[in-house]
Amino acid sequence: MSRVFMFEKPLGMRDTLPELYEKKHRVRSLVEGEMGLWGYQLIETPTLEYYETVGTASAINDAQLFKLLDKDGHTLVLRPEMTTPIARVAASKLLSEDLPIRLAYSANVFRAQQREGGRPAEFEQIGVEYLNDQSVSCDGEVIALLIHSLKKAGLSEFQISIGHVGFSQELFLQILGTNGRATALRKFLYEKNYVGYREQVRSLDLSTIDKQRLLKLLALRGGEEAIESAFDIIENDKGKQAILELQELSAVLKDYGVQEHVKFDFTIVSHMSYYTGILFEAYAGNVGFSIGNGGRYSLLEKFGKQVSATGFAVRLDRLLEALGGGESENNTHCIFYSKERRREAFQLAKKLHEEGRPAVLQDITSVKHPDTFTKKFAETSFLIGGRNDE
Amino acid sequence: MSRVFMFEKPLGMRDTLPELYEKKHRVRSLVEGEMGLWGYQLIETPTLEYYETVGTASAINDAQLFKLLDKDGHTLVLRPEMTTPIARVAASKLLSEDLPIRLAYSANVFRAQQREGGRPAEFEQIGVEYLNDQSVSCDGEVIALLIHSLKKAGLSEFQISIGHVGFSQELFLQILGTNGRATALRKFLYEKNYVGYREQVRSLDLSTIDKQRLLKLLALRGGEEAIESAFDIIENDKGKQAILELQELSAVLKDYGVQEHVKFDFTIVSHMSYYTGILFEAYAGNVGFSIGNGGRYSLLEKFGKQVSATGFAVRLDRLLEALGGGESENNTHCIFYSKERRREAFQLAKKLHEEGRPAVLQDITSVKHPDTFTKKFAETSFLIGGRNDE
Repeated sequence: MSRVFMFEKPLGMRDTLPELYEKKHRVRSLVEGEMGLWGYQLIETPTLEYYETVGTASAINDAQLFKLLDKDGHTLVLRPEMTTPIARVAASKLLSEDLPIRLAYSANVFRAQQREGGRPAEFEQIGVEYLNDQSVSCDGEVIALLIHSLKKAGLSEFQISIGHVGFSQELFLQILGTNGRATALRKFLYEKNYVGYREQVRSLDLSTIDKQRLLKLLALRGGEEAIESAFDIIENDKGKQAILELQELSAVLKDYGVQEHVKFDFTIVSHMSYYTGILFEAYAGNVGFSIGNGGRYSLLEKFGKQVSATGFAVRLDRLLEALGGGESENNTHCIFYSKERRREAFQLAKKLHEEGRPAVLQDITSVKHPDTFTKKFAETSFLIGGRNDE
Repeated sequence: MSRVFMFEKPLGMRDTLPELYEKKHRVRSLVEGEMGLWGYQLIETPTLEYYETVGTASAINDAQLFKLLDKDGHTLVLRPEMTTPIARVAASKLLSEDLPIRLAYSANVFRAQQREGGRPAEFEQIGVEYLNDQSVSCDGEVIALLIHSLKKAGLSEFQISIGHVGFSQELFLQILGTNGRATALRKFLYEKNYVGYREQVRSLDLSTIDKQRLLKLLALRGGEEAIESAFDIIENDKGKQAILELQELSAVLKDYGVQEHVKFDFTIVSHMSYYTGILFEAYAGNVGFSIGNGGRYSLLEKFGKQVSATGFAVRLDRLLEALGGGESENNTHCIFYSKERRREAFQLAKKLHEEGRPAVLQDITSVKHPDTFTKKFAETSFLIGGRNDE
């Protein structure tokens, strides 16, 4: 292979070198630990799934799927997210007792990039799925767990914006009549392009009152008062139902004592078509995009189960970015030895390992630049030559 | 999708449900912990690599590679092992200081199965690569670390069989003249089909003395006496060099105090073409196949670096099989609550979580079969109705 090409990786693929990996590993463990405390059980699904099952059931854009053919001509996909594979597993194996189920995962997912833009095509998501529980308690638990997980990871400045897919849906349906006509407005909301949204509303052939209602939607963001105000612009039962659910959710989150991290936002929509109720997104002060999101969904129907669920997924790379630098302490001991004192060196290493102290054993004959080498460690012992040289 | 098909997974792909996953997670952490103590740093590489780079440099059979095309028509592969991607990373980014480097990984690798046979097409390997150190100390450290890692995982009955790629290579070359003629013999050794090997030797047109030497190879298995006996059947320098290396390795492993787990075996060969020196395989008493293997290799030359390395990979699924059952203790507390006492329930959960005790909060209205549900937990508290109901 050519020298230039031999180090190349496919578009959007990345290596994670030791320093970053250690942080990733630590944060993953903390988040998994918190999920475990709340009774969520980790599971794992294959990297490859059939396109016909998980690929089509997933809400991820077809163009973003990595596809390949197996020897029988079936199309396989690299999983683009974990919610759909978990729905498959739960529907086939875990829901027979018809009880609530709490599952967790940390897994790499794959989304093909169409051009170089610095976006990863493979990234790790840590998340939970709380299945077969329709209550607002379930939604509240998942959001409270997300908040506790982010705090456990070391994040302090962050906010969960919570909305409801049913509210804007009903509002648009009432005012615009068909779902199709709402698509443009929904796209502006998804892109958080509120200027575009306003212009679009003004351009519509609607009564002034209806335009006012559509514009007021943008103001429905904030604390509990935002929930109260929502009653002003929608009157039908489905719309009210969405507001009442958020009201109940707010009470649940207060009981969890996590309200300082919560904001309500009726403008939140998702490109994931399987969401049916409460929706939420996590933002950290210093990162321009959401570090995690989730909501209530009904994906399990695609696998033959009339079961509702709520889940969230955190993007580990973005969480790490939000957590920022912070040097990891290197407390590794280096033991430089020569053959004469090898056994002694090994015994010292064993003693340190038993104390839980990382210690590298290094045969001095293998190191061309001892000073450069020892610089990498917190401390170095030299066990070289005869005993008296010590 | 059809009801029958919707739960299917591609050939060789598996789900890992909570109970098994928990064991996997625990064993992985223990092994990673041991590697960390010895100063090995975890890294991660992408699941997808270019066929032209990692795919062709890897020693894995082409038919076992999962291949796909990217949008530019380049062939990508799902990594079939981790040694080659790590060689790529090390050669491009980590070897500039020309020092010994200790890396570790735990990663899923992919090998396409041609037919249903219960073999996984995706499995996790945990391993290390100790790069840029030619010494026998390096080989010894890697083997000692493998032994300590298996012990840390909880394995007690196991053995590392150690051979040298150079010995049988030289023996065959001396007696048979060309490497090609040795292929059949090497295949029998690889399959551990010693009957077939004997028959093949007898069928060859060789002197009785040479046949005896080839047959004696099979007896070169055991303790240090096997190393001594090896001098009897080979006389040239390269062959002797291999024996001397094993002698030195034996001394190093004694100094580590791990010799009880070590056996020497000059019949070990590998299908991985990149090995150049010491080779080893790990066997547990109750499992019919090796749970891990490794050796010295020169793969980095394919990435432009004249650097030798030694590594090992443990197959996590096989290690778990060797470790066997053992119920994992469920110490999760269940807190059943109704709305009236929700806040109290949340406070109890918080207290338990702070003590590190797993506790599930369950809204009673969501559970159709409370008895079946609570059976899954070590203990259940009922915080239902008014205060006086307790």
